[in-house]
Amino acid sequence: MRKVAIVGAGMISFGRRDEDSLVDMLAMASTRAMDDAGLGDRAIDAVYVGNMAAGLFNHQTSVASALVDRLGVLPAAADAVENGPASGGSALKNGLLAVASGYYDLVLVAGGEKMRDVIGPRATDIVASMTHPLAEYVYGITLPGMAGMFTRLYMEKYGVTPEHLAQVAIKNQDNGLLNPYAHIQMKITLEGILTSPHAIVNNPMVADPLRLYDCCPVSDGAATCLLCPADMASEFAKPPVVIAGFGQATDTHTLQEREDPTDLKAVRLAAQQAFQRAGLTPQDVDVAELHDAFTILEIAESEHAGFFEKGQGAKALAKGETRIGGKLPINPSGGLKSRGHPVGATGVAQVVELVWQLRGEAGEHQVEGAQVGFSLNFGGFGNNVVSFVLRREP
Amino acid sequence: MRKVAIVGAGMISFGRRDEDSLVDMLAMASTRAMDDAGLGDRAIDAVYVGNMAAGLFNHQTSVASALVDRLGVLPAAADAVENGPASGGSALKNGLLAVASGYYDLVLVAGGEKMRDVIGPRATDIVASMTHPLAEYVYGITLPGMAGMFTRLYMEKYGVTPEHLAQVAIKNQDNGLLNPYAHIQMKITLEGILTSPHAIVNNPMVADPLRLYDCCPVSDGAATCLLCPADMASEFAKPPVVIAGFGQATDTHTLQEREDPTDLKAVRLAAQQAFQRAGLTPQDVDVAELHDAFTILEIAESEHAGFFEKGQGAKALAKGETRIGGKLPINPSGGLKSRGHPVGATGVAQVVELVWQLRGEAGEHQVEGAQVGFSLNFGGFGNNVVSFVLRREP
Repeated sequence: MRKVAIVGAGMISFGRRDEDSLVDMLAMASTRAMDDAGLGDRAIDAVYVGNMAAGLFNHQTSVASALVDRLGVLPAAADAVENGPASGGSALKNGLLAVASGYYDLVLVAGGEKMRDVIGPRATDIVASMTHPLAEYVYGITLPGMAGMFTRLYMEKYGVTPEHLAQVAIKNQDNGLLNPYAHIQMKITLEGILTSPHAIVNNPMVADPLRLYDCCPVSDGAATCLLCPADMASEFAKPPVVIAGFGQATDTHTLQEREDPTDLKAVRLAAQQAFQRAGLTPQDVDVAELHDAFTILEIAESEHAGFFEKGQGAKALAKGETRIGGKLPINPSGGLKSRGHPVGATGVAQVVELVWQLRGEAGEHQVEGAQVGFSLNFGGFGNNVVSFVLRREP
Repeated sequence: MRKVAIVGAGMISFGRRDEDSLVDMLAMASTRAMDDAGLGDRAIDAVYVGNMAAGLFNHQTSVASALVDRLGVLPAAADAVENGPASGGSALKNGLLAVASGYYDLVLVAGGEKMRDVIGPRATDIVASMTHPLAEYVYGITLPGMAGMFTRLYMEKYGVTPEHLAQVAIKNQDNGLLNPYAHIQMKITLEGILTSPHAIVNNPMVADPLRLYDCCPVSDGAATCLLCPADMASEFAKPPVVIAGFGQATDTHTLQEREDPTDLKAVRLAAQQAFQRAGLTPQDVDVAELHDAFTILEIAESEHAGFFEKGQGAKALAKGETRIGGKLPINPSGGLKSRGHPVGATGVAQVVELVWQLRGEAGEHQVEGAQVGFSLNFGGFGNNVVSFVLRREP
């Protein structure tokens, strides 16, 4: 298998983008990635699109071939990959395998979702289409509902408190203030969202114990990576970042079938696989982008991925170890909480952020001297998780 | 890149399957493929699902991880691939690249669609979600509408007649009568569907010049292939069939932008690539499964893939050359016309049929002595086409 490098990275600002269609957004992010690489007139061989539900959000299918046409890179092969909120990670994995196989050299992987085409609770219903149709969806469960139950169990088992959850939100919104691509640009404080008498108004309960600021926003957005064999990377403008390892694992469709619902087995396995393939360990990681669709997930994933012992993630957070400047900065981009979570975009956006970090191009939210990055993209409620270890080539 | 073999093939009968969910169907076809291979207790590494629009047809997403759980092959990696009506072909291509890359050994590729969950014209509307949202869909175009315009142009340019179209339908429904997996099991005659005074009632116009029997039915169904590196194939129960080549190409999103709308450029390129990678030519092919969603497409694809000169496909058909027993049997399974076209299933079902043909297991619709098979899966209106050349290993 060939070693694969990322030679171009592009993103557009996440948020509410009423004037841009899904394909518009994918094309803008992709053009930026191609420009970033200094692609010139080299031909793209294949395009992957990570997208969860353009059918439901936008009544559109076959988005990947539409993107190929829009970008003017005909007759490149085009495939869309769907894996719920881990669609971006899955698309990137398939782009990676396509280059690793030797069949394709230049592969563009774009992730995107336009969620704000639908109104109000419809977005939550569309996201809930990944739950089990007969054992979960039919009873009205939503992802915030599942996450609420998971949070309660995790709090009881590991001593996580509402303050810890709020600290994830505060840290990530602080980071988002430094990231021009972030959807939510707003300073929040522990007093404002938790301890003052107005907190219940500022930060209402969504799914007990999760409040509004424990949940990521509903966003539009797109991000793109350009991949090539590592031995071609020197032909491009920027220092290459190598995909040193990837992991992907599936867990039971329903939460209720897991022996211990607080054990995110697929997160553990995906991270282990990625580190094993990279020949690295969690201790080697300088910066991580985790899937904080709900605040509890950043804490739980930081433990399951091997950065902290079980029960220690919240403590490390409270000590500031996961802030920019701390021992292991987590979500310097602002994460899903602040950058936003256009579902199909997220897995690619995490990796674009890491590419910028490893190149030293992350601007105000730069983690100094970062050489190794880790991403974790969480599909379903931990059903299907995709993880990457990236390394700046020396 | 590693050579890849198909060691298991399974399908369920296509048709109206009210009692089976999409995941039920995918699981049944996959169980058959695993049994066919004599999988035993070997672990599946990854599962790909080809599916176009479970979100819209069934309000379900993340179908691939649901299938992994249902099959009990956790923690296999799971990805769904969407590429309109070529979703099955795209999924198979990505399964192929995954094995070729060396990252995965045993990969299951299932294609499926449950289209009969929606009522009446809603299925046609969902399929039309692959057209251009601003340049086509908004004007009410449907796939039958596009195919009708294409047919008229093709008839004028190449002398194709309504009789030729009817002959495709008659041949493929005759073949379908020999295939227990086919949705449409019904003898039709030229008199009944075209020349008798009752023909207009039996076979009403859908999109002039296409009549009812020129269009494939709306079906539920699923099919699965099990892939492994060719050098592992001898560990399995059946003689391996090698994926000798694949091709995939994209064309403009809108029909109107093509210089000559009768020129199916992506079909030509995908077929050329597949033959080139296989080191074979159209003359080497013993049996072909083409994408006859509309009768004209079988004729046009048989020319664009290189089996006949432009304008000669209809003549070869009229001479009986494409019947079982003819020079180049096309769609011995009955094709999309008779087996049915559950969109995401089709690309995989074509290849399952070829595996059976190359093993000599196709029963009453067997093409005697077939050694090389060709499939063509047509997405969009020729926007994104995936093609395979399969070979029975000597």
